[in-house]
Amino acid sequence: MLDLSHSDAIWQRINQKTKPLGALGQLESVAHQLALIHSQNSASVVEQININNPTVLVFAGDHGIADEGVSIAPSAVTQQMVMNFLAGGAAINCFCRVNNVAMKVIDCGMLLPVETEHPDFVVQRLGERTNNFAIQPAMSTEQVEQGLQFGRELAEQVIESGSNLVMFGEMGIANTSSAAALLSALSSLSVGECVGKGTGISEQQYDKKCALVEQAVSRCRGKDVKSVLCEVGGYEIVQMVGAFLGAYQKRTTVVVDGFIVTVAAYIAVLLEPECRDYMIFAHRSHESGHSNVLQLLNADPLLNLNLRLGEGTGAVLAVPLLIAAAEFYNNMASFEQAGVTV
Amino acid sequence: MLDLSHSDAIWQRINQKTKPLGALGQLESVAHQLALIHSQNSASVVEQININNPTVLVFAGDHGIADEGVSIAPSAVTQQMVMNFLAGGAAINCFCRVNNVAMKVIDCGMLLPVETEHPDFVVQRLGERTNNFAIQPAMSTEQVEQGLQFGRELAEQVIESGSNLVMFGEMGIANTSSAAALLSALSSLSVGECVGKGTGISEQQYDKKCALVEQAVSRCRGKDVKSVLCEVGGYEIVQMVGAFLGAYQKRTTVVVDGFIVTVAAYIAVLLEPECRDYMIFAHRSHESGHSNVLQLLNADPLLNLNLRLGEGTGAVLAVPLLIAAAEFYNNMASFEQAGVTV
Repeated sequence: MLDLSHSDAIWQRINQKTKPLGALGQLESVAHQLALIHSQNSASVVEQININNPTVLVFAGDHGIADEGVSIAPSAVTQQMVMNFLAGGAAINCFCRVNNVAMKVIDCGMLLPVETEHPDFVVQRLGERTNNFAIQPAMSTEQVEQGLQFGRELAEQVIESGSNLVMFGEMGIANTSSAAALLSALSSLSVGECVGKGTGISEQQYDKKCALVEQAVSRCRGKDVKSVLCEVGGYEIVQMVGAFLGAYQKRTTVVVDGFIVTVAAYIAVLLEPECRDYMIFAHRSHESGHSNVLQLLNADPLLNLNLRLGEGTGAVLAVPLLIAAAEFYNNMASFEQAGVTV
Repeated sequence: MLDLSHSDAIWQRINQKTKPLGALGQLESVAHQLALIHSQNSASVVEQININNPTVLVFAGDHGIADEGVSIAPSAVTQQMVMNFLAGGAAINCFCRVNNVAMKVIDCGMLLPVETEHPDFVVQRLGERTNNFAIQPAMSTEQVEQGLQFGRELAEQVIESGSNLVMFGEMGIANTSSAAALLSALSSLSVGECVGKGTGISEQQYDKKCALVEQAVSRCRGKDVKSVLCEVGGYEIVQMVGAFLGAYQKRTTVVVDGFIVTVAAYIAVLLEPECRDYMIFAHRSHESGHSNVLQLLNADPLLNLNLRLGEGTGAVLAVPLLIAAAEFYNNMASFEQAGVTV
């Protein structure tokens, strides 16, 4: 559990900075949370918050439910976009470049694999896309367990290699259907409160998506978290849940962005409530359901830029705000230091 | 006037990037606006948006109205904070450091001057704080004209020295009173819609502030913009108005943040409506009146972090978002380039 014994001392430090009380708004909350995390197992409050090698892991997977025509694009686009990530041409690459964020792409089970020796490409496939959850469970118990382990080990490895700020992104045609089904099945939210229009489907596709999700969710009643992951999960979602748990094992800050990643975060919190303490929320997307899952997590994201792209883009865009929060915590003068007489 | 002839071609370029239409939300609007500005007087759409030497100018001045006890701090704090700026200890310094933004501090007429040879300190004093506008006009016509010229020339000089992205911040005890009076006098907004609690005054101080502003605004009826600046303006506000006009002369993008700076932007737009086209809005502050002036400017800021510090902090925090917008415009692959078949 997050050690809160330094909480007051951290607020005191923040409140002595040369600014009116609370005048840095959400950045103060971020600084406080980072300082708490960085002060764990320390006799006193940390003097410096050092953010080292921020890294985004983009988990890619395909979904059998795509056969039902619930997306604007075919599953082949997952592979094409992964190749775009590896070539440096996607939005997430652009934002990583300008914000000095490292990136790895993980094939969790795309329909079409990618043949490459790219150093930032990790292959840990659970299969060749999930089963169509409209017809049968998306995956087996063994696949869920393997996926959680893959994700956990990867996050731990990235952290052991020197990153103390990780974030997750995703790419997977039809994965909003899986995320919506997971969220509805694992909360008291109705299907309508969880299903959105993804990246821009028609009314007809939307109605079909709702009906398919409703039907699948009805199979999940009374089942535990892992069984629900079997029924309606996705390979990339299961690995992200594992990655959240791995980051928690290492007591490492995670920046959470986007509907699908936030659903994975919610599931990780169901499995291990204390991992919530290490999450900072980056962006409130327009995807229906995102506000609802954020509320379940008691989260107030830093950004609201109307992004609806996934990939972890919102998380990477929030990194400069975390660095700014650390910098003011570390180096802003106190009233006493500056000789300001407020 | 901003040449809009490239507008469609710029949208076309943005829409061909490997993302669903509109999926980068407000960053797309920013990229479009930057590309329009950078394509002025060019035969074709600019291929690259280059952001060079972003610079924040922090204008400091004192206000006679502070004698009425409408602020939490005495005028001496303006000088103390300016010394903090020059020593690198304030929030704005922290955010400039991590975002590679240059900073200059301008003494526009502080009660207590600062003796220093600091290379980033500019002295262009209009006086030793303004007159108390509860009793008499804050300044003379000559001071207004001189202030506009000082601000204009400084902005032009910074741009000529190589910056193509400027932003303005302010420091001045009691300057929310001046800004609220200016806004109410120069719009159809009531005093109550313009006066806020600044950095945290009491109910009693708030009522007094409203009454004083109301009284001063009543003197402004029927007067032109410059006469209203004489009545209730501030030395730093007048110089900021001039700086907006100078940036416009150079057709340079300005990032606008905070209530007082936004009021200066509004006044600049009254004097020169076309300078609005070059403004990007950074942050929506909690200061009452800020939302109202943003609405008058038809502005939708990028950030909403509950900042209420001034200094230009929100503008500097928004710089990484502008750089991210430029980077995706410049280097994100098109569907064709990436071989993505959406």
